Amino acid sequence: MVINSEFFMNLALKEAWKYQGLTYPNPAVGCCVVSENETILSVEAHKKSGLPHAEVEALKSAYIKLTNDSKIQTLTNSADIHKYLIKNHNDIFKNCSVYTTLEPCSHIGKTPSCADLLCSLGVKKVYVGALDANPEASCGNEKLLNANIEVQNGILQNECQELLYPFDRWSENKFVCFKWAQRLNGTYDDGIITSKESRKNVHDMRDKCDLLVIGGETVRVDRPTLDARLVDGKSPDILIYSRQKEFDKTIPLFEVKNRKVIISDKLDIIDDYKNIMIEGGANMFEATCDIVDRYLCYIAPKVGGSKVFQTNMEEFEILNILQDDKDIIMWLK
Amino acid sequence: MVINSEFFMNLALKEAWKYQGLTYPNPAVGCCVVSENETILSVEAHKKSGLPHAEVEALKSAYIKLTNDSKIQTLTNSADIHKYLIKNHNDIFKNCSVYTTLEPCSHIGKTPSCADLLCSLGVKKVYVGALDANPEASCGNEKLLNANIEVQNGILQNECQELLYPFDRWSENKFVCFKWAQRLNGTYDDGIITSKESRKNVHDMRDKCDLLVIGGETVRVDRPTLDARLVDGKSPDILIYSRQKEFDKTIPLFEVKNRKVIISDKLDIIDDYKNIMIEGGANMFEATCDIVDRYLCYIAPKVGGSKVFQTNMEEFEILNILQDDKDIIMWLK
Repeated sequence: MVINSEFFMNLALKEAWKYQGLTYPNPAVGCCVVSENETILSVEAHKKSGLPHAEVEALKSAYIKLTNDSKIQTLTNSADIHKYLIKNHNDIFKNCSVYTTLEPCSHIGKTPSCADLLCSLGVKKVYVGALDANPEASCGNEKLLNANIEVQNGILQNECQELLYPFDRWSENKFVCFKWAQRLNGTYDDGIITSKESRKNVHDMRDKCDLLVIGGETVRVDRPTLDARLVDGKSPDILIYSRQKEFDKTIPLFEVKNRKVIISDKLDIIDDYKNIMIEGGANMFEATCDIVDRYLCYIAPKVGGSKVFQTNMEEFEILNILQDDKDIIMWLK
Repeated sequence: MVINSEFFMNLALKEAWKYQGLTYPNPAVGCCVVSENETILSVEAHKKSGLPHAEVEALKSAYIKLTNDSKIQTLTNSADIHKYLIKNHNDIFKNCSVYTTLEPCSHIGKTPSCADLLCSLGVKKVYVGALDANPEASCGNEKLLNANIEVQNGILQNECQELLYPFDRWSENKFVCFKWAQRLNGTYDDGIITSKESRKNVHDMRDKCDLLVIGGETVRVDRPTLDARLVDGKSPDILIYSRQKEFDKTIPLFEVKNRKVIISDKLDIIDDYKNIMIEGGANMFEATCDIVDRYLCYIAPKVGGSKVFQTNMEEFEILNILQDDKDIIMWLK
């Protein structure tokens, strides 16, 4: 194994993928801080909109590792962490390098600018994966260079662009993800398939998306709730994709508050939303594959069931594999 | 992400799993060397019997990183690397820590003792995953302690024991692995399924095992060669598990030199072998599941075929997931 820039960027990438989809409307970003002699000081990711950016999380962890000053630990607000670091850094970062999957942001939005923070702390070098195409946030590199911080672009650029893709899509227009859960032998019928941890992850995705698309047959047979109760999250609006418009309104999904339920035999309504998740089996897959940007597949290491995920899509490319306590969570394109 | 002893041991573990099964008759072992300030100097694994042990590979790489003396690069023989390191180390390892998934060997076998090497180099501390139960090789820790090297046992012990399990089995008696390849939707019929890199890995496994078990139907239908040509390896003996004893002898597997082909409706013959791989589909799986120690599953991210890997085995535990260029290589129990 070679321990080089790609290795450190890959750590940042893997950490960021854990939160893919969950950072909406922000991008998934990972960051790794290393010392002068390439000791890994921290690897962190942006976890959720409103929480600190990856760079801030990573600089906070690195600060604790370098100083043993754990007073910063209790700070969760990004502006507070910025202030604390700027006041107390004492030049400890001056020989550190920062690997970030995305060019540090230059604008002051919900949180202060990461580029400004890196400049204030006077880090030595920033390795950037993907450049920021967002005109509001870009120019991060320019700020760094003006503050005499070395910048090296293009470390695992393709992989970092791939990580950024959902953000690019929902920023420009909309992002559509097709999610399914299956056993190792490809089946997806016959009761609960995945572990509780996987289902929590699905609920977390539902909490972040604004429209959930589901097939009429699934609604009739499974009588689902389609909320985000396992993570105390909000319930997305629902599009029931169905030719038949009549549904038994005692099916739990209709009783969830603060959500709109649309029943339609067309998918046009998704154009009104930004972050859309389709949940379903092979039929829904076939019906929607023309509008899907990425696939999210949960695989339980089990055999059983009888209905196989058989589609006309012949080949996928694996973008990321994550192993939770029991299952595999895989992003595909 | 927490950067601690478990993190470093996990790097060693992941590297070692890449060579699981390929180190026969030796155990799969990984090793990570870190400096005083916890900079990762190297992560290496034992790759093949006769090649240097993981500790030697890792110390060699760490030496190059610390000294830029690349003369050692050309040395591949373990004894030569030992000699070179002992002569030239100049105490550069005196503050280094070594994470090894298995207690360093104490005996002089095909290669000199790793424990002796660690003592000669005077490393500071050795973190050990699993203890060595092999009476010939054990006492590594004792040697280290006698040389005033700190030893900490039990880092990711269960995971390291799991890595060691095939070795434990073939050392005590025999190790039986069931291998299958499938698409994402669980099918395994209809032509070549996995990528060339996955098939090379299978050939590498065949080269290392001494008996390959295959079903009679597969032999008749697929007319396979069942050799290790993709890695220029040796061809294992074959047990065709079949009630019907007559086979067309122009099927390529019969024409491979230096191999025995046994045709039997019993599996008893496997007791004469140490490292056995069964290749097959759902029927062979059912017929052999009582004697299988571990499962090796190749998943191509494709959909297609029609014959599904449907068995009575209900649940697996994922031991390791490796992503090659296209596919997933997964060890299960």
